This record gives sequence, C-alpha cells and structure tokens, in this order.
Amino acid sequence: MAVKNHNSAVHLGFVWLVVSSTVLLQTSDGHSWKKHSLPKPCRNLVFYFHDVIYNGLNAKNATSTLVGAPHGANLTLLTGKDNHFGDLAVFDDPITLDNNFHSPPVGRAQGFYFYDMKNTFSSWLGFTFVLNSTDHRGTITFGGADPILAKHRDISVVGGTGDFLMARGIATISTDAYEGDVYFRLCVNITLYECY
Amino acid sequence: MAVKNHNSAVHLGFVWLVVSSTVLLQTSDGHSWKKHSLPKPCRNLVFYFHDVIYNGLNAKNATSTLVGAPHGANLTLLTGKDNHFGDLAVFDDPITLDNNFHSPPVGRAQGFYFYDMKNTFSSWLGFTFVLNSTDHRGTITFGGADPILAKHRDISVVGGTGDFLMARGIATISTDAYEGDVYFRLCVNITLYECY
Amino acid sequence: MAVKNHNSAVHLGFVWLVVSSTVLLQTSDGHSWKKHSLPKPCRNLVFYFHDVIYNGLNAKNATSTLVGAPHGANLTLLTGKDNHFGDLAVFDDPITLDNNFHSPPVGRAQGFYFYDMKNTFSSWLGFTFVLNSTDHRGTITFGGADPILAKHRDISVVGGTGDFLMARGIATISTDAYEGDVYFRLCVNITLYECY
Repeated sequence: MAVKNHNSAVHLGFVWLVVSSTVLLQTSDGHSWKKHSLPKPCRNLVFYFHDVIYNGLNAKNATSTLVGAPHGANLTLLTGKDNHFGDLAVFDDPITLDNNFHSPPVGRAQGFYFYDMKNTFSSWLGFTFVLNSTDHRGTITFGGADPILAKHRDISVVGGTGDFLMARGIATISTDAYEGDVYFRLCVNITLYECY
Repeated sequence: MAVKNHNSAVHLGFVWLVVSSTVLLQTSDGHSWKKHSLPKPCRNLVFYFHDVIYNGLNAKNATSTLVGAPHGANLTLLTGKDNHFGDLAVFDDPITLDNNFHSPPVGRAQGFYFYDMKNTFSSWLGFTFVLNSTDHRGTITFGGADPILAKHRDISVVGGTGDFLMARGIATISTDAYEGDVYFRLCVNITLYECY
Repeated sequence: MAVKNHNSAVHLGFVWLVVSSTVLLQTSDGHSWKKHSLPKPCRNLVFYFHDVIYNGLNAKNATSTLVGAPHGANLTLLTGKDNHFGDLAVFDDPITLDNNFHSPPVGRAQGFYFYDMKNTFSSWLGFTFVLNSTDHRGTITFGGADPILAKHRDISVVGGTGDFLMARGIATISTDAYEGDVYFRLCVNITLYECY
C-alpha cells in the first residue's frame, strides 16, 4: 500500500508539471501554439537614474550629450521641431536607491537613447546598469522602445553579468521627475525571471 | 506487476527526457560539449515594415532620417561612396500584415540601422516592434547584422514585453521591395522558441 | 524489495534535482528569492578582432569610422577632451583565431561603440560576430558596458543565429594590444550556457 502511494505521488507530480508549465494558445488563424506558464520572479530591484543633458551652458554637470541629430539640427540643443525626432544622445548617469540626485550613487547607467517619433515624444533606449555596491556587483543590459509619455512602459532585460549573469526579464520605467529639456529622472523597476 | 510497470514507465520517461534534451557536440579540438535539442517553436508571426528615408525633399512622408555619417558625408543623402559605410539612420516605420504600404498598420517598427561595410551593402539593426492591435499587444526587440544583399538573413530576437514577455528566437528578414535609396520594405518572419 | 529500491531512486532523483537547480538568495531587505544553480557551459570560444580607426590619413585601411561626436568635436579624430566622451564609431573588423592581424579571418565583427565617460576611458558596445568558416557558421550578438581600462571585462551575449541559435552567456573581453588611437586588438573569450 505504501509503495502504491509513492507511485501515485510521482505520477501526479508529473502530470502537475506538464499542466503547470504549458498552456495552449489559440491564435487568430486557428492554429494552436504551446505557451509556458510564467515562472515566479526570482529578483525585484528598484533604482533611479538621473540624466542631465548638455545644453551648451552646463558642460561641467551634464551627464549626457547629443552626438547625432538630423539634417538642419545642431548638437547643442534638442531639435525644436518634430518632437526631437532623430536626436541621439549618449549618457553616463548616476544610479541611486531613492529619488534624490545627491544620494550616494550605487552605480552608473551607461548607454544611448534617441527620439524616434515625429508626432509625439518617444524614444528608444539601449543601456547598461553598471552596479558596484555592497549589495550588487555586475551589470544588467536593457533594450527597447520607450514611449516617454506613457506613465509606465516596459522594456526588455536582454542580458547581464556578475550577480546578474544571463538575467532575463523586464524593467518597468516611469518618469519620476523632469525639468524642461535639461533634467529627467527615471524610476526603473526590474523584475527578473532567471537568476543564477 | 502493475506496480512494476508504473516504475518502468517513470524510468523510461526519465531516460527519454535526457536523450531528447541533449546531444553531444564534437568540436574541432576534440572537446565534447553538450548541446540541447531545439524545442518546437511556440509562435510564428509574419509582418512587413516600410521605411521611407528622408532625402531632402520628402520631409512630410519620410519615416526615417540620417542622424550620423562619416567625415565628409552629409545628413541629407546616403553617402555615395563606400556603400554608405558609416551612415546611421533612426526610424519609426509602419508595420502591416501584408505587403501593402497603405494597409492599416498593426504597430510601429522603431529603432536604428547603420551601414557597416565598405565593399558591399551591409547593415546592422537594433529595433523594436511595438505591436498594438486586436491580436497582439506588446513589444519584440531585435538586434544583429543584416547582410542586405542576401535573400534571407537571420537576426536575433533579444527580448520582449507584454504578449511577448521574454521572447527568444530569430527573425528571418527578406527585402520584399525597394525603390532606389528612398523606400524599402522588409518581410520579417519571426520564430519564437520561448513564449509565456 | 526491488520495487522499493526503484521508488527510492526516483524519489532521490527528484530531491536532487530540486536541490541542485535552486538555492535561496537572501537579499539585504530580508526577502528570500530563488536562484538557479549555473548550468555547465556548453561552448567556449576564443577569438581576436582588430579595429583600425579612421584618422583622416588611413581611409584605405581603416575598418571603423566616427559617425557621431559631441558639439565642438569633429569626425576625423577622436575628441581630445573628456576621454573621447560622446564619440560614436561604426566598425567592420576582421576576426582571427590568433592575435595576428594578418591571419586568415574567420569572420567579421560588425557593430558600434561609443565612449561614454568623461572622467575615464570607458565605452559601450553593440556588435555581432558574423562567423563563416569551416568550424562555425552563424552569428553571436553582444551588448553592454566596456570599461576599457580594466584588464578583463564581461559583456552579455544577447542572442545568436545559425550554429549559435539563441546563444546565451557572456564574453570576457581583454585589450590584447593597441597603438595610440588608431589600432586596438581585443581578445574575446565567449562562454555559452545554452546551445542548440
């Protein structure tokens, strides 16, 4: 009897695994695809980073600068027309644990963004969090579209190193504050689903 | 007897799993590495996107613009020499389900490309499909080399959000049509191997 | 008795799987997250690539060129101030199996880098190894921060195609040699943890 119970447990475990790890996804063309159930997050991290854009007057404090712009625009100020369409900036921004620009940085957010829509403010981001603190050592790299005017927007975690080796997941970005075209602060809520 | 059968089934299941999920890969230096067998695709999607490059005359209709170019080139026209080597463009292109530029868009392809070979036409792409239709809500982000003159070229899916959370796989790109240096249309056949 | 042994084996197998594939990660806020144990690498590859930056005099031999730069800088030479902050280059570099620039190339390293720190030399890389030899056919795409002055720095493998379909892992980069601002050679030690 005890033996039989053991067997059933193993069997049930197998069935449960299959059921929990795949569901069928019915697409509009009637084709069925297998879909995995989302694993539990293995890490959640919240950081802020602070971008001070060079505007011709703040060379000393600026943490980012335009390095590309469309025909007719310049590299001192964001393009006045077409919602900055085509402006390309490189940045090295401090990362803090709270929303205070003067808090001790726990790392640097390094990468680039460009404005990519003519009829609204929207950008595309490629950047890396280089973390170097008591709690975290390693990098997380992100990429994706950032429709700036949305309150929360998700971008992809595309890789990581060190404490974040092969990180996968998403980051939910929100604009925590901004001052004209010179300063903005982003809150980045990172959810990882694979941690090693 | 029934009990014994149960046990064998479990055992066989285990063996099958191991056999099907790894094969040995013999490398040229005689070292053997384990290789996983490719899982079945969990999603296949085909889209078209349409790029109209700014050329100094089409400001109103252009969906992309040069924002960087090598020394001696300008930002109005693609560089005449070296197969556009060094020209960098930012784009926000409509995505359609068929090859008709005037079909209702199901999203936007947003990102950048640059020409990166002197002796032939070749580019590098980083972009995101921002999908927003009845069928799909979410983003897929792509990156990789695009040897334009090849009929079919594969680039990597590096991440996703929403319906495409943590998407992994490849996209096979083909140039469906082009008109001089002003318009090109790409067909993108996306195969995903991880779907949540 | 034999039956019971079988059962125990299955049971122990299960327990071992769970123990080996997850460990608990205690974070500073007292929250516990599950962490997977790192799988064994499934591939290790070492390559060199060679970058010859255009400097106004070497148009014929240059394999990379500036395509963006901050306000006040030019596209002929790397910016003299701020550790090249804001300089953006596009490259198509030969890949070799050893550190000899004249060895037969096994592929091309294609992508971009930019300098992103004012107070030290540091860059950000996005590029693809396009491999085309007897041993390897396919691409590996990388992205991440590259703190140039560190002896070894890790960047993320974010995708792959062909022989490297959906590659995941890291690449450890070291500067193998450089000549002023014109030539540098990087050694790239790639470790993949997912191979198909």
